[in-house]
Amino acid sequence: MTFRLLSAALTVALASTAAHADEGMWQPRQMPELAAQLKARGLEMDPAALSNLAGKPLDAVISLGGCTASFVSPTGLVVSNHHCVYGAVQYNSTPERDLLSDGFVARTLADELPAEPNARIYVTQEIEDVTARITDGLDGLDGKARYDTVESRSKALVAECEAPGGLRCNVYNFHGGLQFSLIRQLEIRDVRLVYAPSDAIGKFGGDEDNFEWPRHTGDFGFLRAYVGKDGKPAAYSADNVPYRPASWLTVSQQPLEEGDYVMVTGYPGSTDRYRLPGEVKQAIDWRYPTMVGYFGDYLATIDRTTAGDKAAALKYASTVAGINNVLKLYQGNLDGFAQMDDPVGMKQAREDALEAWLGKRGSEGRAQLAAIRALEKELAEDRATRERDLWFNTVLGGGLPGVAVNLYRNAIEQAKPDAERKPGYQDRDAPRIAGSMTAFDKRYDARVDQALLSLRLQRYASQVPAPQRVAALDRWLGISASDKTIPGLDAKLDALYAGSKLGDADTRLALLKADKAAIEASDDAALQLAVAMMPTVLQIEAEAEARSGRISALRPKYMQAMIDFNQSQGKPVYPDANSSLRITFGTVKGYSPRDGVQMTPFTTLAGIVAKTTGKEPFITPQAELDAIAAGKGAQYRMDSLGDVPVNFLSDVDTTGGNSGSPTLNSKGELVGLLFDGNYESLSAGWIFNPELTRSIHVDTRYMRWVMDEVDHAEHLLEEMGLPHD
Amino acid sequence: MTFRLLSAALTVALASTAAHADEGMWQPRQMPELAAQLKARGLEMDPAALSNLAGKPLDAVISLGGCTASFVSPTGLVVSNHHCVYGAVQYNSTPERDLLSDGFVARTLADELPAEPNARIYVTQEIEDVTARITDGLDGLDGKARYDTVESRSKALVAECEAPGGLRCNVYNFHGGLQFSLIRQLEIRDVRLVYAPSDAIGKFGGDEDNFEWPRHTGDFGFLRAYVGKDGKPAAYSADNVPYRPASWLTVSQQPLEEGDYVMVTGYPGSTDRYRLPGEVKQAIDWRYPTMVGYFGDYLATIDRTTAGDKAAALKYASTVAGINNVLKLYQGNLDGFAQMDDPVGMKQAREDALEAWLGKRGSEGRAQLAAIRALEKELAEDRATRERDLWFNTVLGGGLPGVAVNLYRNAIEQAKPDAERKPGYQDRDAPRIAGSMTAFDKRYDARVDQALLSLRLQRYASQVPAPQRVAALDRWLGISASDKTIPGLDAKLDALYAGSKLGDADTRLALLKADKAAIEASDDAALQLAVAMMPTVLQIEAEAEARSGRISALRPKYMQAMIDFNQSQGKPVYPDANSSLRITFGTVKGYSPRDGVQMTPFTTLAGIVAKTTGKEPFITPQAELDAIAAGKGAQYRMDSLGDVPVNFLSDVDTTGGNSGSPTLNSKGELVGLLFDGNYESLSAGWIFNPELTRSIHVDTRYMRWVMDEVDHAEHLLEEMGLPHD
Repeated sequence: MTFRLLSAALTVALASTAAHADEGMWQPRQMPELAAQLKARGLEMDPAALSNLAGKPLDAVISLGGCTASFVSPTGLVVSNHHCVYGAVQYNSTPERDLLSDGFVARTLADELPAEPNARIYVTQEIEDVTARITDGLDGLDGKARYDTVESRSKALVAECEAPGGLRCNVYNFHGGLQFSLIRQLEIRDVRLVYAPSDAIGKFGGDEDNFEWPRHTGDFGFLRAYVGKDGKPAAYSADNVPYRPASWLTVSQQPLEEGDYVMVTGYPGSTDRYRLPGEVKQAIDWRYPTMVGYFGDYLATIDRTTAGDKAAALKYASTVAGINNVLKLYQGNLDGFAQMDDPVGMKQAREDALEAWLGKRGSEGRAQLAAIRALEKELAEDRATRERDLWFNTVLGGGLPGVAVNLYRNAIEQAKPDAERKPGYQDRDAPRIAGSMTAFDKRYDARVDQALLSLRLQRYASQVPAPQRVAALDRWLGISASDKTIPGLDAKLDALYAGSKLGDADTRLALLKADKAAIEASDDAALQLAVAMMPTVLQIEAEAEARSGRISALRPKYMQAMIDFNQSQGKPVYPDANSSLRITFGTVKGYSPRDGVQMTPFTTLAGIVAKTTGKEPFITPQAELDAIAAGKGAQYRMDSLGDVPVNFLSDVDTTGGNSGSPTLNSKGELVGLLFDGNYESLSAGWIFNPELTRSIHVDTRYMRWVMDEVDHAEHLLEEMGLPHD
Repeated sequence: MTFRLLSAALTVALASTAAHADEGMWQPRQMPELAAQLKARGLEMDPAALSNLAGKPLDAVISLGGCTASFVSPTGLVVSNHHCVYGAVQYNSTPERDLLSDGFVARTLADELPAEPNARIYVTQEIEDVTARITDGLDGLDGKARYDTVESRSKALVAECEAPGGLRCNVYNFHGGLQFSLIRQLEIRDVRLVYAPSDAIGKFGGDEDNFEWPRHTGDFGFLRAYVGKDGKPAAYSADNVPYRPASWLTVSQQPLEEGDYVMVTGYPGSTDRYRLPGEVKQAIDWRYPTMVGYFGDYLATIDRTTAGDKAAALKYASTVAGINNVLKLYQGNLDGFAQMDDPVGMKQAREDALEAWLGKRGSEGRAQLAAIRALEKELAEDRATRERDLWFNTVLGGGLPGVAVNLYRNAIEQAKPDAERKPGYQDRDAPRIAGSMTAFDKRYDARVDQALLSLRLQRYASQVPAPQRVAALDRWLGISASDKTIPGLDAKLDALYAGSKLGDADTRLALLKADKAAIEASDDAALQLAVAMMPTVLQIEAEAEARSGRISALRPKYMQAMIDFNQSQGKPVYPDANSSLRITFGTVKGYSPRDGVQMTPFTTLAGIVAKTTGKEPFITPQAELDAIAAGKGAQYRMDSLGDVPVNFLSDVDTTGGNSGSPTLNSKGELVGLLFDGNYESLSAGWIFNPELTRSIHVDTRYMRWVMDEVDHAEHLLEEMGLPHD
């Protein structure tokens, strides 16, 4: 998982720090403002080049949707993390041909394997400021009207942008709604697997080393983008040809050393650096501890219900891996906060300084202060129903009830013209919905699902206080709002699961085409539950949108105040991450996790040997051990280290979604791939601590060494214009 | 526990490396040979001064019996580790006056508190080479005769030496019997507690940090030696006066930095650096794993039988702490060996080199080779009964059976003239025996003891193969030599414990005066067991002594060959540690425990604050936290660190028994106290790895800071001639 974007359902959204040291996930257009800082750090390029989306290096940086990647040859060769190309490896693996264990090298273009059908490569073509088109004339609208207007304008912009075909367009919101950009990306649909080292290299250390340093993971792999003969995106066809990007990155042949300048360009998912103190407090006091407890019980439930049932255990293996990753992330946040001396106080001090400055700013300052007060009031009101919002959504947000709600909602939305449907249910979303309905079986076992739903319902009953309770759900459960337990729950759930056919893929796919009335008339117990809950779902959604609309009128004012305040001190402000293209820069640097211990910034081949136990996740292929023992690949050694560097640390500012991002040196050449952060970085989504927050990169010298000495992918090195042994 | 000498019963004795880098626990007389190396490391004194037992600094280095200490003032002020003065603090603590938690500072001489009755300070007066007096004319004696002759000559030398009174003399065996020294020490019996910081400083980190780095322990305390008005050792009396040592150490006021020369003088207990490959193999393959398994079950048994019985749990608290310490030591040995690439092979390679050299040495070399072959044969024969020797001794070596065997053996020995008795049962040993018989109750609960004996007997039955079995014990247990289990064991043990009065202190003390016949006639079930086992005990002892005698004729030849071989390469050889005074030297230096991690050599006050959780063992006194927060004691800060150094690492070569040893700088001034080794050092008893083996010291700057800013022991700083705030 590491720094791949987490699914939105699992991320906690809510935070407030100003840029500290080299903290910052900067918009490309901000780079010229940072020229002095960039030079001081050692950048040897014109900072303006880092603002140019249409030139090298930025136009070589692409998205895989959740991961970042880059073009590294004129014929569409793409490099990213092993864990980002993992789906393509898995998709092509069979018991007879286990590419996961064996690794895979296509010796010719003809050997390259089609990736999974939903694999995509997105090439950013344009970023257009659409703030005015989104926000003009919003003043005076109430919350719900404001929300709806922004949503429909966004949908219209997207539809217009995507009209020519072969494109994916999205509207991105910066600074909580202060600025909007329409980003147009070429959507390449024929993606092929070119090369992935063995799991034992690409996933070396596995979950045990996830978010940890020291690290020795060869987390890299190669894809290739293919397009139709006309040069336009097309579905997979044997006739397709390699895409010819305008630019591709040059792999550095200069030695990267401790203290050197590095920068990372990529698509970080989300951060919460500008949240208010109350939002930080809620995350620390309530949301993280609540979710850590829940995930613990969730894993225990899966463990208990799949014990001795290998088929069921396999179905939940990826769910368990995902929950473990999020659990480590959440626990890491809590540990990070615990290590800080009063994180809420830090945010509050920042807030107090802002407000003191605004207090001296006359009427403009007073207006901004009033907006902050109003924003705090909205957030407090939002918190007043947090238990209901969390647990009601959780109850209906997955498993059998989730499928039922999704099918019914789809039917409701399909009855409307496309432009009026909720995002997620438009024509452009249809393939994704159908895909998820097909794939549902692979991760579903009725007995396990029932136990998980039972857990969620018990959390709902025990955690949601009476005033917040959902009458429709209480009625369905046969309890009153003050009941903390659910008598007869097992029998109720037995009936639900026995009375539903949604576990069957054909049934689900057929229901995707059913109309609203047909679903409402269905005697399927899960659909009946969805129908019974839908009025409340829609009512809560409408309330949340109204609040979101009101907040969207206030948060931009808060952010403008924050920007003004920082500007008064000569500090630019970067927006929180939102999956749009960003640049972060810093230096190769270790850190001290505690008194008496220093993490050094490079690991080595010798470290791989020392870590190898022969047991998962610390197995090293014999060919690699032999190449190390034979001292092969002297050209990849680092003199100061006396060995080939494997992974390295830097203080650049990255987060989930940055996985696979190119790490560039002072000349803009590729020196590594970002793939993870250290454990101490987990709370950096809220508060970036320059002393402890570190990003972890795989060194291109290790990539080249593996390609040259272990996997014999010399032809790819040649394609990248690199020498080899 | 840390680097205090472990009780002999718990140490594993058996090893072979030659001096590597600065490895070496050197005899003072060897120092001139090492002059070039000492200078290269930075020694600024005449190396010859380090050979002079009668001059500074060596004559200021004293023994507490199991720990090392030093005089630091002209009026008998002694500094050692907190864990070495712990007995004195514990002895003076009451529920009303908890010196352990509160710490203790005597403001005047009159306030100093008598330490526990068995507390001693030993001041080395003379080391006499008695090799000829021990070994002349031994050739031609068979094993048992040789053993007995060495034993009786040693006893005679000791008796002659101790005759004037007030002295403790011992014969020390170097290089497995190649050289013998008679060491005469003044035995000071009036020892008083002067100052100990609170447990929260002196034991900060407790068991959790034991053998670990980073470390933040204020492991220091002060005693004072008192003698009669005539200047001679005397039992405690209010009229006694402070002892006036000939020399005392000067506390350094020069800043100690990374890379600086340091040396440690003290009394290391035992090492196994010159063992044969077969002995190393047995330790790795059998003894350590066997004991680790046994200790695990031993702790579980105590845990189970004391659950819910607080009084019993308290009685076994120190046993549990001791076993945990040894368990960590043994497991650390196994982990250390596992980290080495083939430790037995390393020893074998060394052996092969030695033998190849001997092979070219003519008749002398042939004789040495023959001695090595003969030694290997004896060791192999010794291993043939290792299960019996371990488990039979373990069964009778503790608890109720141990007391019974001890009482009966005492009666047997008391029937002989003093000079003919076994060492340990002579008149000079009487106070120690009586003391242990009195103190037995404090660590004994019949129910727990019975469960532990049951565990030991089951180990005996399951582990000792039929050919090695002890007929008398099998008979007592009612089983045959091939039985691996003991039917009816519980009833047998119920009868044993119900039928013995040895749990009563008065009974035990009375029996110390009983003669052999009286004990043999006793109807006490435990004494009857002892009487039934004694013929076998004595027979096994006689066999072991005969083997020891034969080995004592061979091992010196092996060691002489090793010394000759090393001398041919210009390398001096130090003898394995044997509790005699040694000197080790090296530099202040961190280490890399694994790729990507560097341990830095100093910890800081800031590190104490970071480690403090408010829960055991990481509680810090408020007065200390306040002094840190207030930045008090600027004179103790280290500029390069920006803080006061707390503990530091060096690569000197130390082991259990070195606890409390003075750490001296290049001028011979006190800069710290040795108190522990890192986890990686645990296997250094066998093989010293210069990359990983580190000693841990408390910095005198931290000691002075605590005395000045927290405990206000300014008068002691003045006594040592030191400035204060």
